[in-house]
Amino acid sequence: MNQLISEQAKIGKNVFIGHNTIIEDGVVIGDDSRIEENVIIRKGTELGERSIICANSIIGEHTMAFYNGTEEEPLTIGSDSLIRSGSIIYTGSRIGHHFQTGHQVTIREKSRIGNHVSVGTISDIQGDCEIGDYVRMHSNVHIGQKSVIKPYVWIFPYVVLTNDPTPPSEELVGVVIESFAIIATGAILLPGVHIEEDCLVAAGAIVTKDVHQYEVVGGNPAKVISDVRKIKNHVTGEAAYPWKYHFERNMPWESLGYNAWKIGRE
Amino acid sequence: MNQLISEQAKIGKNVFIGHNTIIEDGVVIGDDSRIEENVIIRKGTELGERSIICANSIIGEHTMAFYNGTEEEPLTIGSDSLIRSGSIIYTGSRIGHHFQTGHQVTIREKSRIGNHVSVGTISDIQGDCEIGDYVRMHSNVHIGQKSVIKPYVWIFPYVVLTNDPTPPSEELVGVVIESFAIIATGAILLPGVHIEEDCLVAAGAIVTKDVHQYEVVGGNPAKVISDVRKIKNHVTGEAAYPWKYHFERNMPWESLGYNAWKIGRE
Amino acid sequence: MNQLISEQAKIGKNVFIGHNTIIEDGVVIGDDSRIEENVIIRKGTELGERSIICANSIIGEHTMAFYNGTEEEPLTIGSDSLIRSGSIIYTGSRIGHHFQTGHQVTIREKSRIGNHVSVGTISDIQGDCEIGDYVRMHSNVHIGQKSVIKPYVWIFPYVVLTNDPTPPSEELVGVVIESFAIIATGAILLPGVHIEEDCLVAAGAIVTKDVHQYEVVGGNPAKVISDVRKIKNHVTGEAAYPWKYHFERNMPWESLGYNAWKIGRE
Repeated sequence: MNQLISEQAKIGKNVFIGHNTIIEDGVVIGDDSRIEENVIIRKGTELGERSIICANSIIGEHTMAFYNGTEEEPLTIGSDSLIRSGSIIYTGSRIGHHFQTGHQVTIREKSRIGNHVSVGTISDIQGDCEIGDYVRMHSNVHIGQKSVIKPYVWIFPYVVLTNDPTPPSEELVGVVIESFAIIATGAILLPGVHIEEDCLVAAGAIVTKDVHQYEVVGGNPAKVISDVRKIKNHVTGEAAYPWKYHFERNMPWESLGYNAWKIGRE
Repeated sequence: MNQLISEQAKIGKNVFIGHNTIIEDGVVIGDDSRIEENVIIRKGTELGERSIICANSIIGEHTMAFYNGTEEEPLTIGSDSLIRSGSIIYTGSRIGHHFQTGHQVTIREKSRIGNHVSVGTISDIQGDCEIGDYVRMHSNVHIGQKSVIKPYVWIFPYVVLTNDPTPPSEELVGVVIESFAIIATGAILLPGVHIEEDCLVAAGAIVTKDVHQYEVVGGNPAKVISDVRKIKNHVTGEAAYPWKYHFERNMPWESLGYNAWKIGRE
Repeated sequence: MNQLISEQAKIGKNVFIGHNTIIEDGVVIGDDSRIEENVIIRKGTELGERSIICANSIIGEHTMAFYNGTEEEPLTIGSDSLIRSGSIIYTGSRIGHHFQTGHQVTIREKSRIGNHVSVGTISDIQGDCEIGDYVRMHSNVHIGQKSVIKPYVWIFPYVVLTNDPTPPSEELVGVVIESFAIIATGAILLPGVHIEEDCLVAAGAIVTKDVHQYEVVGGNPAKVISDVRKIKNHVTGEAAYPWKYHFERNMPWESLGYNAWKIGRE
């Protein structure tokens, strides 16, 4: 099987380890996990129970600090996670449970990622950022350093969160996105913009200013073009937004509805 | 060579298999094919004759069904195909002959792909879609589920075909692109738009409405800005569109011309 | 360790070679280099001293010529380079010293790349292009064939340099970007545009015409919206442009200032 597994690694019960896999010193792997072929898990990485690392991924990848001879914090990934093949996750990040990625994803150091987060294929999370619980990022999303994304935000393909108002400079300022906001395909959020709850940034919008609750913004540069409460689902004919009242799949209020779930937590 | 080749695989004559390659049960590989280093070919995949799978690719990749313990249809790829290194193609798709990909491509399950199709580097085909013969997709194209692309369509870099009119929702509706249409770099096609034959979607267009035959649309949101029949080639000075009369490379009418080829088929 | 190292390769002193690495005939690796796990270095590649090739990369990847049975020039990469994991660099390019890439980068044949160049994660350099010293390309940049980028240019994420005025055609014409220009996130440069020194193409701009010195252009299609000399840094309150007077990190004038460095060279 040609594996290279450190004797200093702690591997749980009932763990499958594939052909040509490398597991370095100090790695901890929870019970009932699956590590597929050609995976590299670098020094000190901790992986929760029932997690799956698909083929050709590199988990705990070296930061620049490694090549400079200094140390980085280890990577932790929570239980029940699924990292799809070809993904690269650096050391020095903390990621919650029920994490999922697509393929060829890159996640750099100092990312603080909550529970039940998903990141789509070839997305690129530049590190030094904060991503709340149940944030859903689709394919090819780019999250610049200093970004703050609150829980229950949806980010669709080819969206970019930028951070440098006068590039190139050393004075970065991140985007802040509040809960339940939706950023549609191909939108670019300029440095420091504040996206409020329940708003919708339309596909292709170039957002240069703050977006307020319930606003729909679109265009280049983006302007207010509607109110989310006026938009109807094309099949049901009912109001589509705020989406928390109309969409439940894989959300904590699934089968309960948002209101009943909210009341239950209060 | 450290290969892991199932005895249940059927490997044709004169097949090259590289270092550290994995070939699982039930795989069929046609004669005169080439499987390069570190390739993984998963269970049941069928690959036609004279095909090349470049290094580090995963062919027949597990869908979610695998991890849930259920089964998916196997993957078939036709003869004379070239899959470039680092690509990931799921099980559960049917792909024709003379198929070509760039690098790090992802193609998900339930994709129905014709003959002589090419897909560029880091493109992401989300599955459950239909792509006709001789469709050319350049780098970093994103094809959402439910998309229908008819034969002889050109799609240039960073184009996205979306599918959810009120994201997030469960009511997806795909884009339909008719034959001989051209979608230029960075265009975003909103859910359900119908792109007719011979039209041209300009670079960066955000397309919110149907586009009619011969129209050139551009801008955000896209509007009609010209007629394709007015556009001239900057070198030859001749009409550039409909392109089928002016471009032949790798098309079935190569060296014959479109009209002669068309008549020959009638 | 399962390595496959040709006896015809010339490997310098103090070179680390990782698990499952393949090094083909005629490869030359400079002293004090590091070749990580699962790397493939193909025939004839020359790599300078103190270079690092991270895991899963393919260096000197086959061009189409290989499969057609013809030959391509070998690849050369200068000293002190760092190629991040998952990258694919074709044979037939010449790359200078202090070259850096992000992850999953693709660089095709006939690229002529200077010294101190960096290319971000999943960027895609299509080959047959010229990239000057100290050019900085961020993540997911696409450089079409025939592009010419002079020294000290900054290109931010999701920028595309196109090359076909009437796609599809055989009459390509590249973009030319002069020194000290900045192309911000998501801009698309149409074929043949000339971007002069010190100008700024704003995020999301669709550039259809030449951009003159000091101009700021934005919108779809892009128009002149300001003069770079009017833009101030949001923290320091000082002029931000031309950036060469205000930004030094990793530039040859670091710690000297641009003017002093310029005078020193005259």
